[in-house]
Amino acid sequence: MKRIAVLTSGGDAPGMNAAIRAIVRKGIYDGLEVYGINYGYAGMVAGDIHQLTVDDVGDTISRGGTILYSARYPEFQEIEGQQKGIEQLKKFGIDGLIVIGGDGSYRGGAALTKLGFPTIGIPGTIDNDISGTEYTLGFDTAINTVLDSVDKIRDTATSHVRTFIIEVMGRNAGDIALWTGVGSGAESIVIPEVNFTMEEVVKEIEDGRKRGKKHTIILLAEGVMNGNDFAAELEKYKSFHTRVTVLGHVQRGGSPSARDRVLGSLFGYNAVQLLEEGKGGICIGIRGTQIVFNDIIETLETKRHVPYLSLYQINKEISF
Amino acid sequence: MKRIAVLTSGGDAPGMNAAIRAIVRKGIYDGLEVYGINYGYAGMVAGDIHQLTVDDVGDTISRGGTILYSARYPEFQEIEGQQKGIEQLKKFGIDGLIVIGGDGSYRGGAALTKLGFPTIGIPGTIDNDISGTEYTLGFDTAINTVLDSVDKIRDTATSHVRTFIIEVMGRNAGDIALWTGVGSGAESIVIPEVNFTMEEVVKEIEDGRKRGKKHTIILLAEGVMNGNDFAAELEKYKSFHTRVTVLGHVQRGGSPSARDRVLGSLFGYNAVQLLEEGKGGICIGIRGTQIVFNDIIETLETKRHVPYLSLYQINKEISF
Amino acid sequence: MKRIAVLTSGGDAPGMNAAIRAIVRKGIYDGLEVYGINYGYAGMVAGDIHQLTVDDVGDTISRGGTILYSARYPEFQEIEGQQKGIEQLKKFGIDGLIVIGGDGSYRGGAALTKLGFPTIGIPGTIDNDISGTEYTLGFDTAINTVLDSVDKIRDTATSHVRTFIIEVMGRNAGDIALWTGVGSGAESIVIPEVNFTMEEVVKEIEDGRKRGKKHTIILLAEGVMNGNDFAAELEKYKSFHTRVTVLGHVQRGGSPSARDRVLGSLFGYNAVQLLEEGKGGICIGIRGTQIVFNDIIETLETKRHVPYLSLYQINKEISF
Amino acid sequence: MKRIAVLTSGGDAPGMNAAIRAIVRKGIYDGLEVYGINYGYAGMVAGDIHQLTVDDVGDTISRGGTILYSARYPEFQEIEGQQKGIEQLKKFGIDGLIVIGGDGSYRGGAALTKLGFPTIGIPGTIDNDISGTEYTLGFDTAINTVLDSVDKIRDTATSHVRTFIIEVMGRNAGDIALWTGVGSGAESIVIPEVNFTMEEVVKEIEDGRKRGKKHTIILLAEGVMNGNDFAAELEKYKSFHTRVTVLGHVQRGGSPSARDRVLGSLFGYNAVQLLEEGKGGICIGIRGTQIVFNDIIETLETKRHVPYLSLYQINKEISF
Repeated sequence: MKRIAVLTSGGDAPGMNAAIRAIVRKGIYDGLEVYGINYGYAGMVAGDIHQLTVDDVGDTISRGGTILYSARYPEFQEIEGQQKGIEQLKKFGIDGLIVIGGDGSYRGGAALTKLGFPTIGIPGTIDNDISGTEYTLGFDTAINTVLDSVDKIRDTATSHVRTFIIEVMGRNAGDIALWTGVGSGAESIVIPEVNFTMEEVVKEIEDGRKRGKKHTIILLAEGVMNGNDFAAELEKYKSFHTRVTVLGHVQRGGSPSARDRVLGSLFGYNAVQLLEEGKGGICIGIRGTQIVFNDIIETLETKRHVPYLSLYQINKEISF
Repeated sequence: MKRIAVLTSGGDAPGMNAAIRAIVRKGIYDGLEVYGINYGYAGMVAGDIHQLTVDDVGDTISRGGTILYSARYPEFQEIEGQQKGIEQLKKFGIDGLIVIGGDGSYRGGAALTKLGFPTIGIPGTIDNDISGTEYTLGFDTAINTVLDSVDKIRDTATSHVRTFIIEVMGRNAGDIALWTGVGSGAESIVIPEVNFTMEEVVKEIEDGRKRGKKHTIILLAEGVMNGNDFAAELEKYKSFHTRVTVLGHVQRGGSPSARDRVLGSLFGYNAVQLLEEGKGGICIGIRGTQIVFNDIIETLETKRHVPYLSLYQINKEISF
Repeated sequence: MKRIAVLTSGGDAPGMNAAIRAIVRKGIYDGLEVYGINYGYAGMVAGDIHQLTVDDVGDTISRGGTILYSARYPEFQEIEGQQKGIEQLKKFGIDGLIVIGGDGSYRGGAALTKLGFPTIGIPGTIDNDISGTEYTLGFDTAINTVLDSVDKIRDTATSHVRTFIIEVMGRNAGDIALWTGVGSGAESIVIPEVNFTMEEVVKEIEDGRKRGKKHTIILLAEGVMNGNDFAAELEKYKSFHTRVTVLGHVQRGGSPSARDRVLGSLFGYNAVQLLEEGKGGICIGIRGTQIVFNDIIETLETKRHVPYLSLYQINKEISF
Repeated sequence: MKRIAVLTSGGDAPGMNAAIRAIVRKGIYDGLEVYGINYGYAGMVAGDIHQLTVDDVGDTISRGGTILYSARYPEFQEIEGQQKGIEQLKKFGIDGLIVIGGDGSYRGGAALTKLGFPTIGIPGTIDNDISGTEYTLGFDTAINTVLDSVDKIRDTATSHVRTFIIEVMGRNAGDIALWTGVGSGAESIVIPEVNFTMEEVVKEIEDGRKRGKKHTIILLAEGVMNGNDFAAELEKYKSFHTRVTVLGHVQRGGSPSARDRVLGSLFGYNAVQLLEEGKGGICIGIRGTQIVFNDIIETLETKRHVPYLSLYQINKEISF
């Protein structure tokens, strides 16, 4: 192993720069050359590849986004794209790859692995919806960002008798809604992984009102439905003076939290070590304070992410 | 003057608590009794009035929202409501009133003044759309909150070739969009006070693209149109991969900025002094570091707020 | 079990209010009465005890500090104090206790356990120096607070050729320095758990200078020595234009992070359940996403907290 | 005027990058070439000068510090240094200069003016101690940073009976202590511009204690004395369980506030316009929303900055 490369793919997430920085520094520390690929798999196929120095990643650990840019590139699902990509890597003399991203990035990584190119996957997405790890890179920052917004909304909510519906990201996963629901003491959390009826939500609002609560906050995962549709459904039962806030892209940005900086550093460092040991086809994760390694193909094909569901029940008993 | 009262009305704004605190403390310091009226004019008419102590306002200077709650109460435009309100105040022995809020609050204050009840107005609204003052209470916090969000969106914007439309509050005023547009280096600012054509906006986006800019940020005041309509208009010209973020109620909340805490303290302190001097029918403002006093009726009827329009031109020349 | 009580003791930590809130809500949800004890063991002995309602803990999840106040009370190490405390609890009809705090709080809890009073310990301290848990309540917020400060110092550090020594809390533990050192990309981390020589630190600074680095940041745990002494030691070798910042009590405050809010909720909820199951003498911890229970006496007497030392080596290889 | 240059000098301040950005963009917009001088007057004399493009200042408006670095350079007080500096500027074909900084920067600017080189001064310092302007660039960010810290300290202060002494920057000026004292509701503010006796401070603490206050916060300007000396003085009277926090360099950093970004943009834009109009020897300021121009030599020699002293008296009456 002499030359390795790194790319970020899919939605960007805070902490990606910490991972890139660790990969570059650890690689150089060990005598490797490290290359960056811009715009994910699209840039790989296009040959948008350049060497990275220690200075290139200076002062990046505290920056949101990704200095390597990112892109979605569905064409990489085809074998032609994959082969073209490997060709490009070989042209630069690169013999190992680290991909940082979500599901789609992992699928690319698995494909490259099947074609014999040593690839390591780092789970980087705010959605926390990747198997083989307790936490993905960016999730911790995202939930802090959401909470900061919900706290602000609660400031103003207390003035009026209103029901605030806050739609948060997460694709098909409810993790962001679940954690920020507990963290903000939301009266109701609505996520795709738990069945619910509008009647229940109505009851939660009305129970709160009976106990003298002037306002209600509902944390809604985008995977269930969008906030405005939810409000419309709710208003069919009764006028709850709903206000909808769709937090949107704010959730992806911001300086990474302490956890995400440390997690990115750990992930990046270990990814380089794996390549150095001649390993590939592995995705990295964390369990407690333990870094864990899983087969990327097996993880993708057989495991399913499950959120921390006991939080759901706990919230019912402490945020009524 | 022995007993004075304070209420907050309309949309709540950060810094209202700082003003309430200053009123209560300065009043008590000078030997007055100070009463709080909950829920604005609605609470005044309903007699939701209670005495406030030094401790009641302890640790509130850093809190968003308003500890006196707020409400909109259009019924107060009728003379019956106004007379009923004065009756309630007199029942509590209150002989001077301070109202904190926007336009609607001022109209209430002007009405009470016409009926002979000494009333002082403090401009409290994030919109900065009140005449007779350079800045309203809450505006400074709101523009910092918006900027924090725009910075986060820009983190993620740089990864993709996209056009972000960020809709901000301000009712009919463009102040929030204008200041945060300059503060974030937005490529385009769209406010109600300046005519624009979609062609111009299209040109600004395309000029940026030609110079190599990958992303564009447009700050849109809600007074022009809503973000989704704006995006639809824009897409008629060409697909700009627009993403719309409606910042919503987040903008009203949060711990007040340093300025808003100091401004609230200054406004509250001076309002008490005016009542002590036997004055009424006055609204308070700030010009530079000077506290200014205007006739509330005259201000409402003859003056119109104008935003800091030179910022608009400056932005065109520095954020192209 | 009909009536339980909760106290916070030792240095306060962000997230304590989240735990108190969960205890009160979960208790009431299950039909218990929940009492709060002010000022830790001192208040227990003095009988400063009062019932808590659902509303008493409303809007507290986002607040720093502890609504039950805290105190150090070395007198509780004597059996007389402990017996007096139990007497007071019995006077109020309380038959189970939850203590939130660090080492000292645990010692009190162990003593009560030995005297037969069912007591549960929740690890609440920013120092992360408690055995039987991967993380203590408050640590996550503290490392984010420290990082925010270090980022600000780095802004200004880049302008000058200087060496910044940042002294952080942690008592005898290096966890805060270790995590924030990695999170900020500090050129040097100095903690009590790893031997170091001034020569090594000097070498790290000079190596950086040779590679063109203009500034150096050293994260120093207070358990090693204080910042000014460290600077004096360093200047014996050469003038490095050192600037010392002692972050101090800022590190204890602030709105709790998402993690600390969720962790506090989990800890509080589970503590109540343990008491309901008739258990006592247990301290709660977290491993990964798993809540764990340990014997409080055994934990205190036989286990020693060890920081996440692999971070130390990793930082040497990525922040040179 | 074809080529202009900009430098930052003295202590760096948030918003300097916003000003540099505005200068570069406005200059290029108008067809000028704009050069950056690294490390202030030292770099000017050394010829550390390079052209700046629109891209060089991209994404800098939100960054703390200064991309042009800064330095103190007392040698520039000698005429030889000044002449050498002008020579260097002429070698690059530069015919106008903008200096951003405090007192020292202004003195350099005045000297260049006397030697006939057109120079414009922008007040950039967190201390707010420059005449000819109500606010200096960086002051608004600094007071928000300080308040954030004081709020955190107050969280923990409420748990114990203690007196917190918080030493803040400001050199010989009390502005930072004054504004943040009012903004945090400090029980005592100690600044160089107002005489005080330790007896008064003691009385303020004791009066608070009598009214049931558990903690006291004292905002101390570094221009009076340092925090530890102050604590020692105070403890001579009685043990107040003082804790000292010296906020230090944290105060200089951080992403600039909305105000400082707008102010920097306004200052930079107007500075370029002045040079284009053939003017020099002027320092820029703001009064209310009005940009004002003063003779830099006269300002330096005859005017003295006075803080907003009415805040001092107001605080006594609302934060007792």
